[in-house]
Amino acid sequence: MTTLLVLYRRPEGGPDALAQFERRYATEHMPLVAQTPGLRATRVQRVSGVLGGETDLAVVAAMDFDDRAALDAGLASDPMRAAGRILREIAPGLATFLVVEDAPELAGG
Amino acid sequence: MTTLLVLYRRPEGGPDALAQFERRYATEHMPLVAQTPGLRATRVQRVSGVLGGETDLAVVAAMDFDDRAALDAGLASDPMRAAGRILREIAPGLATFLVVEDAPELAGG
Repeated sequence: MTTLLVLYRRPEGGPDALAQFERRYATEHMPLVAQTPGLRATRVQRVSGVLGGETDLAVVAAMDFDDRAALDAGLASDPMRAAGRILREIAPGLATFLVVEDAPELAGG
Repeated sequence: MTTLLVLYRRPEGGPDALAQFERRYATEHMPLVAQTPGLRATRVQRVSGVLGGETDLAVVAAMDFDDRAALDAGLASDPMRAAGRILREIAPGLATFLVVEDAPELAGG
């Protein structure tokens, strides 16, 4: 499994700016993402706290694909390209797009 | 669902240092984590790339609990405290511990 793990920093502008980001993210960005070919699962989570430190992160989204080739094909698809255009409007410079691979050998089981 | 999402930065010392971290993480830290009461699921992933930017992250681990109270009880348990001691040895200053909450209303579905 290959996952696109997107880390969203909190927008400047306080709670109102975050609420506006979340509204457009849920109603404009994610419906397009959902149409991405090869997308196996999606999980979106809000950052509610941090232990023993600080963070500027507000939202984390994980999108699972079968492998890196499937992710790359998904990224090149029309729905994902349209979703990306919206993201550049609503979260300019606020997202880090990690590509991560399941590593069960590290999970100790 | 409440998830402890741990972001591990790459240790200084290059591939050897990362390999040593991974070895002790898998053989010492995670077997203790696995004994944590209330832990529902664990997913460990390696960062294999980043799109359109840079990252200092190497490994991401997600540990799911029923809710924040279950997470807090798990954190206070003997296995998790022992796991934390090992982490402070093998990844000093390299981990960010986010508490995140499922937000299906943001996933657009």
